[in-house]
Amino acid sequence: MTANPAIAILGGTGQQGRGLAQRLARVGQRVIVASRDPLRARDAVASWPDAARTIDVDDYGGAVSRADVTIVAVPFASAADILAGVRERFRAGSVVIDVTVPVTFAGGRMTTIDVPEGSAAEHVRAHVPDGVHVAGTFKTIPAHLLGEIDRPLDCDEFVCGDSDVARDRAIALVQALPGLRPVDVGPLARARSIEQLTALAIAINRRHKIHDARFRVVGLT
Amino acid sequence: MTANPAIAILGGTGQQGRGLAQRLARVGQRVIVASRDPLRARDAVASWPDAARTIDVDDYGGAVSRADVTIVAVPFASAADILAGVRERFRAGSVVIDVTVPVTFAGGRMTTIDVPEGSAAEHVRAHVPDGVHVAGTFKTIPAHLLGEIDRPLDCDEFVCGDSDVARDRAIALVQALPGLRPVDVGPLARARSIEQLTALAIAINRRHKIHDARFRVVGLT
Repeated sequence: MTANPAIAILGGTGQQGRGLAQRLARVGQRVIVASRDPLRARDAVASWPDAARTIDVDDYGGAVSRADVTIVAVPFASAADILAGVRERFRAGSVVIDVTVPVTFAGGRMTTIDVPEGSAAEHVRAHVPDGVHVAGTFKTIPAHLLGEIDRPLDCDEFVCGDSDVARDRAIALVQALPGLRPVDVGPLARARSIEQLTALAIAINRRHKIHDARFRVVGLT
Repeated sequence: MTANPAIAILGGTGQQGRGLAQRLARVGQRVIVASRDPLRARDAVASWPDAARTIDVDDYGGAVSRADVTIVAVPFASAADILAGVRERFRAGSVVIDVTVPVTFAGGRMTTIDVPEGSAAEHVRAHVPDGVHVAGTFKTIPAHLLGEIDRPLDCDEFVCGDSDVARDRAIALVQALPGLRPVDVGPLARARSIEQLTALAIAINRRHKIHDARFRVVGLT
């Protein structure tokens, strides 16, 4: 496992991607913000605080071809198309980390998107080449909380993956962010449960008029 | 809402039911252990510590007919048959609290049971009369931890229900037990997410060789 991997973030200027990019850069990770529009992305990144100085910007294909780890932080509905466009660019043995959740907020109401593969993570798995590993994590932390980069995170993040390589890489990234504890939950299909948990967090937010519901596991030391 | 409701526990001598019965009795709730075999149940209850002195025992129909609240703590696979047998005995306006989870452990391996209604709680809803309210809770706390009645519980319990009456009753029961905080997550169908969470807890237990994985919500005061 490369000690200091190059991390491409697809959708790195979105709310979730921006938060991950800045928080990872701040702890010394090598981040490449990957965007459909790299020039606009470069302007966006230039407007971020200090950490942004170390963040690189590229188009999707360029970023993926240089990445040891590719984080999929685009909206779930766009993931398949974007991955299809860069399919030939992945490095063999690299790791894709899916952070998407199959929900939409059409008309202000949360709706779960039915995913034929069973979960967003398995959907992503179906759209990347065989020689690339896939993990899922950063699914239950509120995107806007990630984006407010000075706020403490203070929760657990569930990690699943199709191989030890994938899980280890995802666990290392979660551990790199202060206030997060990774909880390994096993095979990639466990993303089904994790994504249900996100839906539950959103429901708790709405019902209790809060914004940051997230989870900790009790009984795990 | 009756201040001190009579609480029938179907399956009250099972691991989960026994824990609930003793813990509820200890905080002054009126508990009726409901069993297919009340004589054997009476012997079982007599062997429990002090709290058992206040616990009543009855057969399923007798207990349900006297109950303001009926807790369904039988194995998921038996719930429909047992509820069918007592269908005419429920008090109008009473509340049924489903604590079952649709999993089996055939051959030591956890398997999720596919539930046509979408969740165990909705399955229970389909098997009780219209005038009876249904809530779901106590689904994510490990049964054996409930059963070790001197151990602190220290976690959140998600509550869903088909009405405010159902949720309020379930919330009151969760609150009655020291160390538990109820988290209202809304409609009964949210049991789908809650039951996924139980499957996740079981997976965490197995993967990390622990026994008591359970959850707390962060960000909710």
